[in-house]
Amino acid sequence: MNEKTTDSAAFGDAPSAVVTAGLLVIGDEILSGRTKDKNIGYIAEYLTAIGIDLKEVRVVSDVEADIVAALDALRHRWTYVFTTGGIGPTHDDITADAVAKAFGVPLDVDPRAVDLIAERVGRDGLNAARLRMARIPRGADLVDNPVSKAPGFWIGNVIVMAGIPSVMQAMLDGVAPKLKTGVKLLSASVRADLREGDIGTELGLVAKQHPDVMIGSYPFTDETGGPNTSLVVRARDPARLAAATAAVEEMLVKVRAALAAAPR
Amino acid sequence: MNEKTTDSAAFGDAPSAVVTAGLLVIGDEILSGRTKDKNIGYIAEYLTAIGIDLKEVRVVSDVEADIVAALDALRHRWTYVFTTGGIGPTHDDITADAVAKAFGVPLDVDPRAVDLIAERVGRDGLNAARLRMARIPRGADLVDNPVSKAPGFWIGNVIVMAGIPSVMQAMLDGVAPKLKTGVKLLSASVRADLREGDIGTELGLVAKQHPDVMIGSYPFTDETGGPNTSLVVRARDPARLAAATAAVEEMLVKVRAALAAAPR
Repeated sequence: MNEKTTDSAAFGDAPSAVVTAGLLVIGDEILSGRTKDKNIGYIAEYLTAIGIDLKEVRVVSDVEADIVAALDALRHRWTYVFTTGGIGPTHDDITADAVAKAFGVPLDVDPRAVDLIAERVGRDGLNAARLRMARIPRGADLVDNPVSKAPGFWIGNVIVMAGIPSVMQAMLDGVAPKLKTGVKLLSASVRADLREGDIGTELGLVAKQHPDVMIGSYPFTDETGGPNTSLVVRARDPARLAAATAAVEEMLVKVRAALAAAPR
Repeated sequence: MNEKTTDSAAFGDAPSAVVTAGLLVIGDEILSGRTKDKNIGYIAEYLTAIGIDLKEVRVVSDVEADIVAALDALRHRWTYVFTTGGIGPTHDDITADAVAKAFGVPLDVDPRAVDLIAERVGRDGLNAARLRMARIPRGADLVDNPVSKAPGFWIGNVIVMAGIPSVMQAMLDGVAPKLKTGVKLLSASVRADLREGDIGTELGLVAKQHPDVMIGSYPFTDETGGPNTSLVVRARDPARLAAATAAVEEMLVKVRAALAAAPR
């Protein structure tokens, strides 16, 4: 029932060991703006740091069919899917139901989860609402929750975590050592000291000459209050990263000289 | 070519005038964690305030096929689709290309956009990179950019905005008066002074008895450092909102009394 081994297909299109992830954020409160999501940026940075490429994020409301559809779209495309939200004790917490449905497995009260929740609230505190948090899709492994005990779970390539940032972060720390990771994406930042519109064409040529390197361009307002641009070069291979970064720097020198020679 | 009228189909399943939206955030920098998105929460809150329900968000990388696929999924399902990011002057800015492809229209340099960009950089500054920002899918209306001139655009039910928060926010202000809006979703918050696990079952019964009202439950740590719960009741009809809110409050009184009678 556990499908942890099926995700090797995700490696098919990559020359080096690329491990990918999708993220599914579940909850009406994010879509209404009541709660400002703090998990997307955290998970993005975390996964990048350990060598997993986050490729897609979806935010959906507390509607089972929508959660199932998003889960199925993500889990068949990326190595891992992380979810946040919807595993609490109330009627609007339906992530476990949706995951069980997506995998076609029963959703039973899991004695391991019951024991963990009882550690926090005592056997007397195990009412129907709290037992709801102990419903785990059959075949799933539990994900430890050192903050408030009620566990997340891991089934197939889907890792289900809480929505509360402190709990999610603790769960991710617990899961991370068990994740397959790829060759880390290295990056170098170059400050252009030019406006994005001054270098777009020349930067495009550099990008074309270095097709296996990603080059991003991000405008920002610098300390003088003027428009500036940060160029970020990313590659898995250090030599290719260095070559593309050098090409970017050389291009910048040329453009600066050309603009200085023909000031407007 | 302009499809602004075709989205009335979105009203088909709603008793009152419900206007919905999807949001597509475009950019590798969000997925790598380099840039922390600030637009999702802002747009969610903004749309809720003007009577548009944000139903789904997707974040995709700078890959044309992925942008087109996400656009098509969102624009056929929701009244409006807002996009952020990918309309700058560099090679990685491919949102206009993807939108033109999704709508099957040519992507030409638009004289209206050229004039706007020239206001900022002068005719001499109109190099190939900046003219890239003037490429607008045929049939689209321009979206004003009072911050830095280079416009967004609006085609069919898709509204394309910049990724830089200050520019996006100004664009949204310009677009908002032209949007069809629905009956606003009203909301009431009730502080439970109980733990979520104490009220889950009873709250579920209240939710079942008020099927046309949304009731969300959000745990938080209160000023005593203890676990508490915020209950948010949402409905378009004020009488239904009031009835469900009263039922929630009545339930809380009962649960508090029961817990006081049988303390653990």
